[in-house]
Amino acid sequence: MYRAPVREVRFVLEELLGAGSLAASAELADYSDELARSVLEEAARFAEGVLEPLNRPGDLHGARWTPDGVVTAPGFRDAYRQFAAGGWTALGADPKFGGQPAPRALVSAAGEFWGSACLAFKLGPMLTHGAVHALELCGSATQKERYLPRMISGEWTGTMVLTEPQAGSDLGLVRTRAVPDGDRYRLFGQKIFITWGDHDLTPNTLHMVLARIEGAPAGVRGISLFVVPKVLVNPDGSLGARNDVRCLSVEHKLGIHASPTCVLAFGEKQGALADLVGEPGRGLEYMFIMMNSARLSVGSEGYAVGERALQRATEWARTRLQGKALSGAGPVPIIHHPDVKRMLLTMKSQTEASRALTLYAAFQFDLAAHSADGKVRRTAQARGELLTPIVKGWCTEIGNEVAATGVQVHGGMGYIEETGAAQYVRDVRITTIYEGTTGIQGNDLIGRKLGRDRGAAIGELIAAMERELRSRESGDPAVLGVREAALGAVAALKSATQALLRTLASRPEVGLAVSVPYLKLCGYVIGGWLLAKSAAIAAAKVDGPESAFYAAKIRTAAFYAAQVLPTAAALARVVEGGGASVAETDAALI
Amino acid sequence: MYRAPVREVRFVLEELLGAGSLAASAELADYSDELARSVLEEAARFAEGVLEPLNRPGDLHGARWTPDGVVTAPGFRDAYRQFAAGGWTALGADPKFGGQPAPRALVSAAGEFWGSACLAFKLGPMLTHGAVHALELCGSATQKERYLPRMISGEWTGTMVLTEPQAGSDLGLVRTRAVPDGDRYRLFGQKIFITWGDHDLTPNTLHMVLARIEGAPAGVRGISLFVVPKVLVNPDGSLGARNDVRCLSVEHKLGIHASPTCVLAFGEKQGALADLVGEPGRGLEYMFIMMNSARLSVGSEGYAVGERALQRATEWARTRLQGKALSGAGPVPIIHHPDVKRMLLTMKSQTEASRALTLYAAFQFDLAAHSADGKVRRTAQARGELLTPIVKGWCTEIGNEVAATGVQVHGGMGYIEETGAAQYVRDVRITTIYEGTTGIQGNDLIGRKLGRDRGAAIGELIAAMERELRSRESGDPAVLGVREAALGAVAALKSATQALLRTLASRPEVGLAVSVPYLKLCGYVIGGWLLAKSAAIAAAKVDGPESAFYAAKIRTAAFYAAQVLPTAAALARVVEGGGASVAETDAALI
Repeated sequence: MYRAPVREVRFVLEELLGAGSLAASAELADYSDELARSVLEEAARFAEGVLEPLNRPGDLHGARWTPDGVVTAPGFRDAYRQFAAGGWTALGADPKFGGQPAPRALVSAAGEFWGSACLAFKLGPMLTHGAVHALELCGSATQKERYLPRMISGEWTGTMVLTEPQAGSDLGLVRTRAVPDGDRYRLFGQKIFITWGDHDLTPNTLHMVLARIEGAPAGVRGISLFVVPKVLVNPDGSLGARNDVRCLSVEHKLGIHASPTCVLAFGEKQGALADLVGEPGRGLEYMFIMMNSARLSVGSEGYAVGERALQRATEWARTRLQGKALSGAGPVPIIHHPDVKRMLLTMKSQTEASRALTLYAAFQFDLAAHSADGKVRRTAQARGELLTPIVKGWCTEIGNEVAATGVQVHGGMGYIEETGAAQYVRDVRITTIYEGTTGIQGNDLIGRKLGRDRGAAIGELIAAMERELRSRESGDPAVLGVREAALGAVAALKSATQALLRTLASRPEVGLAVSVPYLKLCGYVIGGWLLAKSAAIAAAKVDGPESAFYAAKIRTAAFYAAQVLPTAAALARVVEGGGASVAETDAALI
Repeated sequence: MYRAPVREVRFVLEELLGAGSLAASAELADYSDELARSVLEEAARFAEGVLEPLNRPGDLHGARWTPDGVVTAPGFRDAYRQFAAGGWTALGADPKFGGQPAPRALVSAAGEFWGSACLAFKLGPMLTHGAVHALELCGSATQKERYLPRMISGEWTGTMVLTEPQAGSDLGLVRTRAVPDGDRYRLFGQKIFITWGDHDLTPNTLHMVLARIEGAPAGVRGISLFVVPKVLVNPDGSLGARNDVRCLSVEHKLGIHASPTCVLAFGEKQGALADLVGEPGRGLEYMFIMMNSARLSVGSEGYAVGERALQRATEWARTRLQGKALSGAGPVPIIHHPDVKRMLLTMKSQTEASRALTLYAAFQFDLAAHSADGKVRRTAQARGELLTPIVKGWCTEIGNEVAATGVQVHGGMGYIEETGAAQYVRDVRITTIYEGTTGIQGNDLIGRKLGRDRGAAIGELIAAMERELRSRESGDPAVLGVREAALGAVAALKSATQALLRTLASRPEVGLAVSVPYLKLCGYVIGGWLLAKSAAIAAAKVDGPESAFYAAKIRTAAFYAAQVLPTAAALARVVEGGGASVAETDAALI
C-alpha cells in the first residue's frame, strides 16, 4: 500500500530549502509552510486513494487504439475528472487564466506523488503543463485567451509533438510541412512517440507541433512551433469539426501501458489547421521551454518510482520470514539480513538524495523568479539551468537502479508480475529515454551549460557546497563523517571539472566521451552534499519529539557516505582519464 | 540477426586458457582446438538457425497452462527434437550412459550461444544437465541405468524441485513430506518456481525433489533428495501410469515467457511415488551439486543475453542516422557520437570480461578433473569453487546492466517491444535471482568460501594475477596502461580482502554487509586481469592476418581499464569501510 512521503517532502521544503522565504515575494505572498503542507496532504490523499488503485489494472489493460480514437484503461476517465475538479491541473499556472500560484518546488513535490502512484496517469498532466508553460511564454494574446483557461482548468489536455521516424534526438531533421493558408497553416506529416497523443479523457487536446514552413531553411533554423487542436474551435469557443489529425496506432511498450504513446498523422486529407506560435523559425527554442520544464518533472519520476519500489520492498522485507539471524534464531524477517538491509538503504539513500536534488533545482527557479535580490535571481537561474540535465539524467538512472534493486529484494517473487515490483522496472525504464536520453543530458550539461559559461555556474555551486560544509560543526561523529565524505567528494568534483574544462578546450571529442560519467558524478556529489546538510539539520533535532525520523536521516546519510559516495571518486577518475579510450577507438573495431 | 561469437570464444579457449592441453588426459584424449572449433561452429549454426527465430514469438506466445499439462510455444517441440537429435543433450555427460565427453569450458561456451539465441529454451536442457550431474554422482546403480541414458539422449528432461512458498533461499524450511511405502516413498506437498516443471517436449520428466522423510529432524539435516518421474516407469522401462504430480499453474513473469515456471502439486491423491537418492538427510548437499553446476551456467546466461543486446545495439548504432559529427557533417550513424561509442564499449568490454571469467572458472573444474598434477588439481578445484559465486553474481549483474544499456542505445525505439531490445532486459532480470540471488552468492563467497579456508584460495589467485601481470612486458603503451590499471585493481582487491577477513573475524555482521560489493570487486578485478592478459596476447599478433580482431581486443581492454576498472577502487573502499553503516542502522529506521 503506497503512502505518500509527506513528512520527507516537508523536510526538504521546510527544513533543507527554507521554501517559506518565498512568501516575501508579491506573487507568492500567500505561501507558507502550512499552506504547502495542506496541499501536500491533499495531493497525498488523491495519489493514495484515487491513482494507486489504477496502477496495476492500467498496466494489465493498457490504453487501446480503436478506429474512433484511443480508449483509456478503466477508471482513468473518472480519475482525470477528479484530478481536474480538485484543481490539480491549475497548480503552478498563471492566475490570470485561472491558475493557482505555487512555487515550482511545491509543484514538483506533488508531482512525485502522482508519479509514484501511477506514472502512466501522471504523464498526461505533465505534458499539458509543459504546453501551458510554452503558451504562457510564447503564445499570442488571442492564443492565451482562447486556450489557456481550458487547459489550466483541465477541460482540455496538451501534448508535445516533436519526434518523427527519422528525427528523434536530432530534431533538425523534422520534415512535417506547414503550408500557409491565409493567416493560418495546414500541416502535413507523421509524428511518432506522442505521449497521451490521443485519448478519451477530454473532448479536445491541443497539440504543440514542430513543423517546417514551406520554403524555410534546412536544419534547426527552419523549424517553427504550431498549435493544432484535435477538434477545431469556433470563434465563440464552442467545438467545431474534427481537425485533420488522426491517431494511427498506439505503441506496444515495455511499460507505462496505460499511457497511450501515439503515432499521429497530420494532414491525411486537406491538412491539419494550425496556428503559428511566436515567430517563424524559433520553434525549437520555444520547444525547449516546454522541454526543460518537463525534464525536471521527469527527473522527479525517477525517484517517484524509486520511492514506490522502496516502499514495496521494505514491506516485503519486514514480513517475509527466511533464514536465521547471526544469533542463530530464525526464521527472521529478511530485513535483518545484512545484505537485504544494505539493498534497502541503497534504495532509500539514493531516493532521498534524488528528491533533495530535484527540489533544490526546482527551488532555484523559484528564487530566480521571486527573489528581491538581483544577484540571487541571476545565480539561481544559472544554477537551475545547470542542474536541469543533472536532475533529468541522474535521478532517472538512479530510479532504474532502485527499481531493479526492489525486484532483487523480493527474490523470485519479484519476477512475478502479480507482485508489482517488476512493473516499476518496466515503467521507470522510459525515464532515462524520453525528453532526451541520459546521453543527451550529458551533452547538454557539458556542451551547452559548461560550454556557455566556461564552468562558472558549476564553479559557484562547488564553492557554495564547500563553504556550507566547512561552516558546520557537529558533535555527532556520524554527522562529521558524512561531512568529511561529502567534502572529499566535492573536491573530486572540483578537480574533475577543471580537468574536463581543459579537455573540452583542447580535445572536445575526448571530453564528450565522459559526459555521462561527469553528469553522474555531479549527481552523486550534489546529492551527497544535500544529504550531509540534512544530517546536520537532523542532528540538531534528534533529541526532540520526532527523534526516530531525524535519527533515520542521519543513518541514511551515513550509509550514503560510506557505500554510495565512493562511486564519486571512481567517476572522477573516469572523467579525468577515461575519454581517450573512447576517442582513440575506431568505431569499426566495436 | 544474431551471429554466435565463435571467434571470441575460440580466443578465450585456445589463446587465453590454452584448453588444448586437456588432451593430455585419458578422458579427453580426443579433445583438440579443431574439435572444439567444429563443435562451436555446429552450436552456432543451431543457435542462429533454429533457436533465435523462436525468441520473440516465444516471448509473445509464452508457455501456457492447460488442464492436461503445459503447452509450449509454437516451434519449441520441433526445436527440442532437433536439439536432442543433434546430440547436444549428451555434450559433457558420462560416456558410460551415452554421453559425449567434453571439457566444461566447452560446454559452457556452447551454452552461451543457446542463451543468447533463446534464453527461455536454454533453461530446459540446463536443468536436465544438473539433474544428470546429480544422478551421476549420487544415484544408485539402478537409478543410473534406468534414468541416465534417457536423459542424456534427450528422450526425457529433468528438473530441480526445491522452492516452496515459505522456503526460498532458506531451504531448511521445506515441508514437503516423504512417507515410506515399502522401499519407496510417497511425496505430499506443493512446490513453486519449478523451471520447465511441466511441458510437452518429451513424454516424461524426472523431478529431483527435496522433501522431508516423516520423523526426520527439523532444519537442513532432515531434508532428503528424491527422484520422482512425471510418468511411472515399468520394470521393463516402458512408461506406465501418470504419477501423482500435477502442474497447478504457470507464473506470469517479467520475462522468459516461453519457459514454463510451474507450481507443482505432489500427492493430491495417494502420494507421488518417489525413490530416495543417496542417503537420507543429505538432500541439500546433493542438491548443491546440481546447484553449483547450474550457477556457472546461469553466470554465462548473464553475458549471453548481454552479447545479444550488444549485437542488436551495435547494428542499430551503425545504421541509425542522427545528429552531426564534430566536423559538422551529418546526419551520421550514431555510433560516431562519443557517448554512444562509450555505451557500446561498456557493453562490449564487460561482456568480454564476463565471458573470460566464466570460461576461466569452468576450465578450473576441467583442470581439477583431468590434470595429471595433484597440486594443480587441488588448486584448480578450490579456485573453481571460489569463482562459482563470483561468476553467478557478477556476470548476471553485468548482464542486466548491459541489456539496459542496449535499450538506451536505441533511444525511444528501445522502449518499443517490437524492437527486441526490451525483451533482453526482461529476460536477463531473472538471472540475478534464480539459483541463488546475488546476495546469496555474496554470502556463499565470504561466508563459505573465504570462511572455509580463511582466504587461502583468493590469496593464491591474487598472487597468481600479480605474478602473471608483472611477468609480461610489452612495447604497446595501451597494453602497458592496461597492465598498470589491472595491477592497481589487484592491489585494491588484496587490501580489501585482508580488511574483510579481519572484519569477518571480529564483527561478522559488518563483513556480511559488504558481501555483494566484495563479490563485485572480485568480478571487476579478475575480469580486468583476464582482459589485460588478452590484450598482451593480442599485441603479439596484431600485425598478423587477423589484425582488426586483435586490435579490437587491445582497444576493448584499454576502455575497460580506463572507464570500468576505476569502479574497483570505489568498491574496495566500500568493502574496507562501508559495512558499519549498515550494521549500525536499526532496521526500524529504514
